[in-house]
Amino acid sequence: MTQTYRIAVLPGDGIGPEVTAEALKVLRAVGERHGLSFEVREGLVGGAAYDATGDPLPPETLELARWADAILFGAVGGDKWDHLPLEKRPERGILGLRKELDLFANLRPVVTWEPLLHTSPLRPEILEGGVDILIVRELTGGLYFGQPKGRDGDRTIDTCVYTDAEIRRVLHVALQAARRRRGRVVSVDKANVMATSRRWRELAEEVAREYPDVQLSHMYVDNCAMQLIRNPRQFDVIVTENTFGDILTDEASTLAGSIGLLPSASLGSGRAGLYEPIHGTAPDIAGKGVANPLAAILCVEMLLRYSLDQPGAADAVQAAVAAALRDGYRTPDIREEGTRLVSTAEMGDAVVARLDS
Amino acid sequence: MTQTYRIAVLPGDGIGPEVTAEALKVLRAVGERHGLSFEVREGLVGGAAYDATGDPLPPETLELARWADAILFGAVGGDKWDHLPLEKRPERGILGLRKELDLFANLRPVVTWEPLLHTSPLRPEILEGGVDILIVRELTGGLYFGQPKGRDGDRTIDTCVYTDAEIRRVLHVALQAARRRRGRVVSVDKANVMATSRRWRELAEEVAREYPDVQLSHMYVDNCAMQLIRNPRQFDVIVTENTFGDILTDEASTLAGSIGLLPSASLGSGRAGLYEPIHGTAPDIAGKGVANPLAAILCVEMLLRYSLDQPGAADAVQAAVAAALRDGYRTPDIREEGTRLVSTAEMGDAVVARLDS
Ligand SMILES: CC(C)[C@H](C(=O)O)[C@@H](O)C(=O)O
Ligand SMILES: CC(C)[C@H](C(=O)O)[C@@H](O)C(=O)O
Repeated sequence: MTQTYRIAVLPGDGIGPEVTAEALKVLRAVGERHGLSFEVREGLVGGAAYDATGDPLPPETLELARWADAILFGAVGGDKWDHLPLEKRPERGILGLRKELDLFANLRPVVTWEPLLHTSPLRPEILEGGVDILIVRELTGGLYFGQPKGRDGDRTIDTCVYTDAEIRRVLHVALQAARRRRGRVVSVDKANVMATSRRWRELAEEVAREYPDVQLSHMYVDNCAMQLIRNPRQFDVIVTENTFGDILTDEASTLAGSIGLLPSASLGSGRAGLYEPIHGTAPDIAGKGVANPLAAILCVEMLLRYSLDQPGAADAVQAAVAAALRDGYRTPDIREEGTRLVSTAEMGDAVVARLDS
Repeated sequence: MTQTYRIAVLPGDGIGPEVTAEALKVLRAVGERHGLSFEVREGLVGGAAYDATGDPLPPETLELARWADAILFGAVGGDKWDHLPLEKRPERGILGLRKELDLFANLRPVVTWEPLLHTSPLRPEILEGGVDILIVRELTGGLYFGQPKGRDGDRTIDTCVYTDAEIRRVLHVALQAARRRRGRVVSVDKANVMATSRRWRELAEEVAREYPDVQLSHMYVDNCAMQLIRNPRQFDVIVTENTFGDILTDEASTLAGSIGLLPSASLGSGRAGLYEPIHGTAPDIAGKGVANPLAAILCVEMLLRYSLDQPGAADAVQAAVAAALRDGYRTPDIREEGTRLVSTAEMGDAVVARLDS
């Protein structure tokens, strides 16, 4: 007897559809091998949804998302829609999903893959021994959603707002994750300037008292942006607010070698979650079959682990990705001499072929 | 007949006093050689001022700053004062000066020094040919000063606010600087999420029309944080708002090899300016005579260039720093095998000794 998991697939724009197709291919393949069955439904989101319906997050898509045990999300956005007001832009698709489903904790693991150490712009000495950081980004608060927001005559305003409860719950996620890792959390803020940061720091101290086995420290965001490059191996778990997390995770992707390698899980208080690569739509390479699908495929790993509670299947995906890299398969973003250049679909196939090993 | 320039020296906290002393040493030495005379007055700021007067920016200091043609600033802050409310913290000293003197444009050059290419955490290939970026950070708006700011029950708020005039004037500074450089400006924002960014982007397009010889492009801040590490040589001038500029400049310091090498100039509408290293107070090494004074010394270069209009003297400082590095003088932050480890004061002396060559 197998359980049927409900999977919503929202490919979005640009390279979203092509990388999501590979992720789905891997999900189906690992499901067969681990006796998992899926009901998969696809929906429109972002620019694609706007073009079809005039709404970047149509009601049917939101319904589909609520129905699902897990959402495989591609990417949204593109120059084509830049002229639209903020509430019609493709980005509203992902922002709306995060907010409506209350997916407040965005887990963004940053790990180096041994065979790719030489594709990072950082010196090998800096990465030696490997980097393994989990960045926990708050995802439904801060500057992204605070009101008032907008233009009033010659003044324009964004509001960064956090309630104590919003800060506390994401700190718990980070502190709990640290327990299952190396036991250290760096909380990143700008407490010397921002009131929300100051409150964040106070609450971090308070919440951490419930985790005497975890070591908490604080770092200013400007310093963290420097430390991530100078000495990334000092970090275990980083927890930070929405905007800082957005910036620091893109920066940290350089450690792994390519932003095409970084998945993320957006979780709320239940098991359901949304899984999206941290890369964008990369319009310049969209439709050419050259995008790296590994970030999307690693989303499947996170999906299996966090939403479906299938650690065995998750480990299998992780191992298959490692094997494909070890065997020299490379999309253009991580190409090196002496490796085998493959297309998006060939990389997906290479991972599937290694699920049994 | 020599003109007498009025210089205010505000050493502040931590390593501020020791690096500022070397900067002053170089300023006096270059002044003698170039027939410049100075009236130098020192003032209290930051934690030092708070301890002495209960105010991180005492009225006498503000008066001194207004009197000066140029201000040599050290650094402010430290754990010791972290418990104080935001308006009493050492940082209020520098933030207050920026705001009161309306120093809205913060120029932060990021350059690689040939003899230090190997001290950067980045691979030599990435830096090959040298990096020469000017980051223009807006300094008196955004999240730093916007009201309302503070806690109200269980909600805490910061406000990011910009008037059109504030955005326009800093864009002009960047576009003018690009004219004297390689003619390219990247305006960095988060226009897919923030209303202030969206307005920033519109005004950048508008203002750039007055500079048909300058090429303007836009980049999201998350992407910029990645591009600075992946391909820093693509940038000429970067212009961005206050908080993004804070984060990106600290990150970019890794290109130069050490944050101890980065000066900055904070300018308003007149010639008067404030010059401060972008590094902080580094409490862990304060008072030990090991801090790198080159950022502070390079502030003297900027001061001569921008506030005193003495390009010859500025060039002499620049050349003397390059010569000291070429001759192998190194503070611990940039030490390499085969170089000569020196103290803060010895580095200052090494630069002075090379002013005549
Ligand atoms: C597309 C955009 C709204 C989004 C964000 O800023 O959160 C993206 O950059 C990300 O990091 O997921
Ligand atoms: C000390 C602090 C207030 C300051 C800032 O954030 O502007 C510093 O980080 C800087 O970059 O000059």
